[in-house]
Amino acid sequence: MKYQYLTNIDLDKAVADYIAFLQKADMTPRVETVPVPQSLNRVTAQAVYAKLCSPHYNASAMDGIALKAADTFGATDTTPVRLAPEQYTRVDTGDPLPAGCDAVVMIEDVIEQDDDTVLLYGAATPWQHIRQIGEDISAGDMIIPSFTEITPAAMGAMLAGGVLNVSVLSVPRVGIIPTGDEVVPPSDNPGEGDVMEFNSTIFSGMLRTWGAEPVVYPIVKDDFDLICAALKKASEECDAVLLGAGTSAGRDDDTAAAIKQLGEVLYHGIAIKPGKPAVLGRIGEKAVMGIPGYPVSGILVLEHIFRPVIDSWLHRSVKEETVEVKLGRRLNSSLKYREFVRATLSVDAQGELVAVPLNRGAGVVTSFVKADCILDIDQDAEGVEAGGKTRARLLRDRKALEQRVAIVGSHDPLIDEAIDLLRRVRTDISLSSSHVGSMGGIMAVKSGQAHMGGVHLLDEATGIYNNAYIDKYFPEGGVALVECVQRTQGLMVTAGNPKNIRGFEDIARSDISYVNRQKGSGTRILCDFQLKQLGMDASSVYGYEREEFTHTGVAAQIAGGTADCGLGILSAARIYGLDFIPVCDEQYDLLIARSALELPSVQAFLEVLGSPAFKERLLALGGYGVDQPGRIRKVW
Amino acid sequence: MKYQYLTNIDLDKAVADYIAFLQKADMTPRVETVPVPQSLNRVTAQAVYAKLCSPHYNASAMDGIALKAADTFGATDTTPVRLAPEQYTRVDTGDPLPAGCDAVVMIEDVIEQDDDTVLLYGAATPWQHIRQIGEDISAGDMIIPSFTEITPAAMGAMLAGGVLNVSVLSVPRVGIIPTGDEVVPPSDNPGEGDVMEFNSTIFSGMLRTWGAEPVVYPIVKDDFDLICAALKKASEECDAVLLGAGTSAGRDDDTAAAIKQLGEVLYHGIAIKPGKPAVLGRIGEKAVMGIPGYPVSGILVLEHIFRPVIDSWLHRSVKEETVEVKLGRRLNSSLKYREFVRATLSVDAQGELVAVPLNRGAGVVTSFVKADCILDIDQDAEGVEAGGKTRARLLRDRKALEQRVAIVGSHDPLIDEAIDLLRRVRTDISLSSSHVGSMGGIMAVKSGQAHMGGVHLLDEATGIYNNAYIDKYFPEGGVALVECVQRTQGLMVTAGNPKNIRGFEDIARSDISYVNRQKGSGTRILCDFQLKQLGMDASSVYGYEREEFTHTGVAAQIAGGTADCGLGILSAARIYGLDFIPVCDEQYDLLIARSALELPSVQAFLEVLGSPAFKERLLALGGYGVDQPGRIRKVW
Repeated sequence: MKYQYLTNIDLDKAVADYIAFLQKADMTPRVETVPVPQSLNRVTAQAVYAKLCSPHYNASAMDGIALKAADTFGATDTTPVRLAPEQYTRVDTGDPLPAGCDAVVMIEDVIEQDDDTVLLYGAATPWQHIRQIGEDISAGDMIIPSFTEITPAAMGAMLAGGVLNVSVLSVPRVGIIPTGDEVVPPSDNPGEGDVMEFNSTIFSGMLRTWGAEPVVYPIVKDDFDLICAALKKASEECDAVLLGAGTSAGRDDDTAAAIKQLGEVLYHGIAIKPGKPAVLGRIGEKAVMGIPGYPVSGILVLEHIFRPVIDSWLHRSVKEETVEVKLGRRLNSSLKYREFVRATLSVDAQGELVAVPLNRGAGVVTSFVKADCILDIDQDAEGVEAGGKTRARLLRDRKALEQRVAIVGSHDPLIDEAIDLLRRVRTDISLSSSHVGSMGGIMAVKSGQAHMGGVHLLDEATGIYNNAYIDKYFPEGGVALVECVQRTQGLMVTAGNPKNIRGFEDIARSDISYVNRQKGSGTRILCDFQLKQLGMDASSVYGYEREEFTHTGVAAQIAGGTADCGLGILSAARIYGLDFIPVCDEQYDLLIARSALELPSVQAFLEVLGSPAFKERLLALGGYGVDQPGRIRKVW
Repeated sequence: MKYQYLTNIDLDKAVADYIAFLQKADMTPRVETVPVPQSLNRVTAQAVYAKLCSPHYNASAMDGIALKAADTFGATDTTPVRLAPEQYTRVDTGDPLPAGCDAVVMIEDVIEQDDDTVLLYGAATPWQHIRQIGEDISAGDMIIPSFTEITPAAMGAMLAGGVLNVSVLSVPRVGIIPTGDEVVPPSDNPGEGDVMEFNSTIFSGMLRTWGAEPVVYPIVKDDFDLICAALKKASEECDAVLLGAGTSAGRDDDTAAAIKQLGEVLYHGIAIKPGKPAVLGRIGEKAVMGIPGYPVSGILVLEHIFRPVIDSWLHRSVKEETVEVKLGRRLNSSLKYREFVRATLSVDAQGELVAVPLNRGAGVVTSFVKADCILDIDQDAEGVEAGGKTRARLLRDRKALEQRVAIVGSHDPLIDEAIDLLRRVRTDISLSSSHVGSMGGIMAVKSGQAHMGGVHLLDEATGIYNNAYIDKYFPEGGVALVECVQRTQGLMVTAGNPKNIRGFEDIARSDISYVNRQKGSGTRILCDFQLKQLGMDASSVYGYEREEFTHTGVAAQIAGGTADCGLGILSAARIYGLDFIPVCDEQYDLLIARSALELPSVQAFLEVLGSPAFKERLLALGGYGVDQPGRIRKVW
């Protein structure tokens, strides 16, 4: 039953070969006839010809009188022509042109006489003010060709042309079969070891976006016979099937074996990362793919391999548009795979798009929520240096990216709250935030990749926050420091403090497990300062090397029981119901590039900081003091 | 009851004032909770926070053994560490980390001994190969802010964060009420004077595209009380109402009066063309608009005025992107209105987008099918000169436009048939065609606005087609003539030939009404040549000035009974069941720019011309002879 990776095949070749393989197996879209009003965004199966002319009769285009133009010849300002009642007919706009008439005169130009005759002071041109038969469409004209997506205007044109029903390609039905012993439906109270199955929801959304109809089947246990039975059923009921491979290494072997049992496998193993274990096969003429279990891998395999299958079925030509972006920091990559890396983008001072790679974990689905682009790193590249260029597929409009304000720096939930408050009043302003620590924020503002960033950097010499660091890193000036909040840092401790931790001096105790923040974060610097003041040695602290990137990340480890304490802010401790031992109050400010300070979007953000609504949200979070948030404290 | 245009208000001001007017009246989106899997493309009503960490437990990221890292310290290649069975636990990927363990060692690095102890030749780092709690999302983190469109990845992130239901803005229900005594549902057999109601279908499609739900009400007769009753019902059942105004001038007065009766009218009359008679009002807090009856006017009013209302309801910020385009020919415009003109686009030799305006008729819905952009001509402009620049909103991807092959020239249905045949095998190639007559085609190729065009221009001196014209208009060369078809031109005559027309010599008879083609078309030149040969005077032909732009357009007038005959091709006569009196055979060729000749897309098109499938379609159309279509006859 065991089945090894057979291939490490180039992505583009795999896709081209797979489509050829399916076409050879006679993959053909079904065709159906639908009423035109229900045909929006469907794809025509053949050319559509008008059955009627539109308009289908000669119609008056004005309110006025219809007449024979020849009867008016010779009429001028000084020599009017008089028409007897039998020489003209009153018509309203849209009325059919009476027989024998070939022109309409606007009612404004008609001088009515008492005896029902009319005077005209100008000659009519034949066919004036008449919407002639076929002005829009002539019967027999091709309205839209084959394999064309139907727009609202095309629906109107078809109806105008007397076409009430249209032959379209069927919406492909795509079965999704999740598998795995430990896999459970989404829950807000999962058991330990339960893996929540949300891939089918993500995949369904993607399929709908691409014009396909997802059919999600129940979760199947890791049993070869059960998997084969589910696959057989789905391949009979659908036009294509995506078989989830669970999350374990080796699960895709069963997937490949099951497809092989019922059909044929073309490739198992594509030279991309993530996504390598994908299986490309068929059952009969139907595409059947094994999709890796990690969501990030699955999403990329669907986008890069399955979407072209759908496009081919729908006879749609989708050209992926790529741009060149500059790397904000070095990115390593394997020579064995073409690598796709989610990244955020900002526009630097030179107007270039600068990418900062996001967490590459295959399970990190939020990276797709945050990502602005997918970097595409060639297989034969060992990586890209900071400042080097690489290809990327944009996930957001370039214009939107250019106008977006980038907040890069220390993590505090208040940044997200402020962004949310601003969105509630101004959806035309777009802001992004990344948590890279205070030092990361300084570097991002310095390099022009960020407009602003949260900083809380303690100067050990003076005990004053931030100023000394800005003096050092911005000797040429060009930035301002804007007041934000005072916040309390402290030890977050297991609820009830079972190990009776009294303060920082206890974190090196042999029964205590600590969880730290990453290097360069203000909180890490504070931790090191505390250790130094207490004359403690970092190496004596168990867990000192265990780094989390956010306050909530630290709190989550403590609440999860794998650490006893960690330094962080009160609001994070509260969310997780942890005890909190205050250590110190600190100043959390916003460092802002002076060039950004006058941007209307930055001004709007600073206004939010000063608003009562923001104060209310801080109060709800807890652990903050405010004086005059939004005030410029100092300009460099 | 009569109500005059009150205003001629600037569009941008009208939109801004209307939204402020509706907000003041308390227009507020409804909010509803939906299961996350059903939330695709919906807009969040508030920020969404994670309820759970994802993963929600510390999980092994590998198949291997879980252990305490400290137990492995000191292990090297030469000094392995031996672990007793109670010091480790076997784990598979995804398994929860057993209590007391803080690292996982891959199974490949574990040397198993017979006594169930294991040997490790390297030390483990704490937390290695563990997916820690919250690696993706920490409970309490904001997943997406307010007023954000939900993507497939966001659905996955919400489920991963334990969020099963999400609060979203309701889909706005928009009532559409068609009105008019003469208005009937779409039909393939409408009576004379019936106006087919397809605006509601077009508008429904547009609304769906914008994330709203259309509700189409039955057609209401032109009766003020009936209109008020329908409006009242719709405004109670929907979030906004679009009231169709019929097609007659003055119908919008009733519309405005009805809205005024039940609510308030802000503006009646916007300074745009088409679209002036739009009515902007409300009933209670609900937007109610009077929409002009002509489809083109209605579409533009919906796009420019009602779409911003929907965007405001859904808290969505849509920035219309405009580009600058060059006018291919002079465009006149009124100083009284800002004018929107549909146009096709091509890319000229300088890489600039060149626009050619389409038929401006307000009833010409096909112009929206053909249009590549909407030109936006300022109110204070009298027009734009040929070569002048103006703003345009692109309806197609710029990249697609750049890669498209433009066929501009003489009308023959075979061009559409060839395009359709090519689409059936190559949807990656995009072609457009415009019918501007043979001379128009020569000019378009000469100016670089077209890659090729159909030509059939008779040289009176030699009787040879096309060559003399190309000699004259391309003295520098740069073009090639490609053989297409021989076709029969003749007089299309009312079915049964009731007036006993025998040939061209009869068209000046006093009982005969003729319909002509436009100046510059090959068929018009042929007509003039025939008249000259017969020594006839154009002014003696009734209808000589009546111009149609296509063969089917001419045939439609004859079939409609307002003309007795016209010059055209057999296939057009056949579609309309007309009699046909052959006049001559002519050569219909393709003029192609030499720079375009080697394009793969043009090559593919020429291949289609030579294909059996094309020959089959010509046979079905009738009246064509083929020798070697696709063959290059001469290069200049």
